[in-house]
Amino acid sequence: MGVYSIGVDLGGTNLRAAAVGSNGQLLHRISVPAVYSAGPEHVVGDIVGAIRSLRAEVGSGTLRGVGIGVPGFIDIDNGIVIGAANLPGFEGFPVRTEIQRSLGTTIILENDANAAALGEMWIGAGKNVKDLILITLGTGIGGGIVVDGKILHGVHGMAGEIGHMTIFPDGNPCGCGNCGCLEKHASATAIAAIGRMMHFGPDITSAGVHKLALEGNERAKLVFVSVGRALGIAIANLINLFNFPLYLLSGGPLPAWDFFAPTMMEEVCKRSFTFQRSQARIERAVLGADAGLFGAAYLPLQHNSMQEIAISAVR
Amino acid sequence: MGVYSIGVDLGGTNLRAAAVGSNGQLLHRISVPAVYSAGPEHVVGDIVGAIRSLRAEVGSGTLRGVGIGVPGFIDIDNGIVIGAANLPGFEGFPVRTEIQRSLGTTIILENDANAAALGEMWIGAGKNVKDLILITLGTGIGGGIVVDGKILHGVHGMAGEIGHMTIFPDGNPCGCGNCGCLEKHASATAIAAIGRMMHFGPDITSAGVHKLALEGNERAKLVFVSVGRALGIAIANLINLFNFPLYLLSGGPLPAWDFFAPTMMEEVCKRSFTFQRSQARIERAVLGADAGLFGAAYLPLQHNSMQEIAISAVR
Repeated sequence: MGVYSIGVDLGGTNLRAAAVGSNGQLLHRISVPAVYSAGPEHVVGDIVGAIRSLRAEVGSGTLRGVGIGVPGFIDIDNGIVIGAANLPGFEGFPVRTEIQRSLGTTIILENDANAAALGEMWIGAGKNVKDLILITLGTGIGGGIVVDGKILHGVHGMAGEIGHMTIFPDGNPCGCGNCGCLEKHASATAIAAIGRMMHFGPDITSAGVHKLALEGNERAKLVFVSVGRALGIAIANLINLFNFPLYLLSGGPLPAWDFFAPTMMEEVCKRSFTFQRSQARIERAVLGADAGLFGAAYLPLQHNSMQEIAISAVR
Repeated sequence: MGVYSIGVDLGGTNLRAAAVGSNGQLLHRISVPAVYSAGPEHVVGDIVGAIRSLRAEVGSGTLRGVGIGVPGFIDIDNGIVIGAANLPGFEGFPVRTEIQRSLGTTIILENDANAAALGEMWIGAGKNVKDLILITLGTGIGGGIVVDGKILHGVHGMAGEIGHMTIFPDGNPCGCGNCGCLEKHASATAIAAIGRMMHFGPDITSAGVHKLALEGNERAKLVFVSVGRALGIAIANLINLFNFPLYLLSGGPLPAWDFFAPTMMEEVCKRSFTFQRSQARIERAVLGADAGLFGAAYLPLQHNSMQEIAISAVR
């Protein structure tokens, strides 16, 4: 066993970790419940435990470092979570320092959607592409923007908030204070909410609306036309701004692709002459829930190779 | 005189060129009519003539190269104009090769709005900032996105089309085929068009609407409220995507800032929690029509310093 890396994905209910070889081959993986209610120290302890287990499993290889995908805003330089609505107690907690102290290896924190975008670029639908955008459709909508192989962080690590792009200026109110955010019109949550407005009952889910559409229900199909319209407007905007070759979608509503993609593509064609002139691939991501795990593992590998380039430039 | 550079700005009616020192000091400038009707060979001949005049004026300095800002899409690698609605005959014409053959120096073509963004970063409102976006309000709306000191080009040099971001999905029809593009709601042309809808007469201009607003005309003030709303939605989207520290506006309608900026800032606050949490400067560009000229002059200076870094990295 040569060089390897460990990726950690802090999910809503589980803490998943994987040892990954330098070419992206999965060596070992582990999943334990994430007990956020026990506080960040406890969760960090579980992360350290998972990493130790994986090191023991791998045995003699050289660990390049650990990447951790976190559902929140990250102060990348300091390895601190600066905002995470779903991780109580983590805001301001020195996650990196605590783990580094226990393990003595490079630890890199990254936003989970950003990590997923990197994962797709490394070994997923974006292989051989260095500029891409991933849009993750879930409870909300997240995004990761990769420019020339590296995540676009912005000045406070908050770039890539694709879910809060205004699509309909007078659209559905969003928890962020805005109206008409993409995620209020195209997330899994939004699909269920539109389903309720279509009188599919108070307990309808995104998957339930998809099932109805598959059964031929015309109102269910209309829900996805509406989703496709919102996604198309968003992706056309992204194409006009970035002129990237690849835009990927992932998340729970992806199986309903055939119901929303035609409208999405129509909107993209109409709203982006850049797309008309230069084309771009708009596709399904392929790594599913593992994108963030692999992307997290990629972080220390990328980080080390960038450091080596910097060092050789100085020499 | 040490190292200097020459910037050329191909405008709608004039061809302007300037010799600029390596710290941004203006050495000499020249302006001649741009006779597009005479064909690209003729215009390229005039560009070569202007550059020769400036070289003669500067005398003994070392010319690093020539940057040329062009109102169109550029194939940066090949120095070819691939799309320019306002430059008849230029599409596919090998501008760089023709000029390089006559002058024997580095020639770099760039889109004019991109060049203006670089100019503002170099010696304008973006001094000391490496990540910024410039929005130019004119006949249409152009844009330049600077990431880590370099223009974001995208895969076909078409990135930064901020004017064609969809702001109102069912808004005013645009020549690009879309509806509700930013430039149909906030360019100088759009301001005049909204002014006509306000019954200010068929010949009203953007400046005329501004004059009426200054005189206290309430309908004229409403035009700028509408412009501010569109700009605010656009800038909020940009902040959510890029999380950059600086967003600049330039162009003819800028003197009406006090009439559109309050609504613009209200919209940005409401529509970007990234802005609420991390702040960002939204300001007037300071170089006016010279931004593109200076930015074009900056291109060969930046290009050479990047090449030197690359060479030292290889050594």
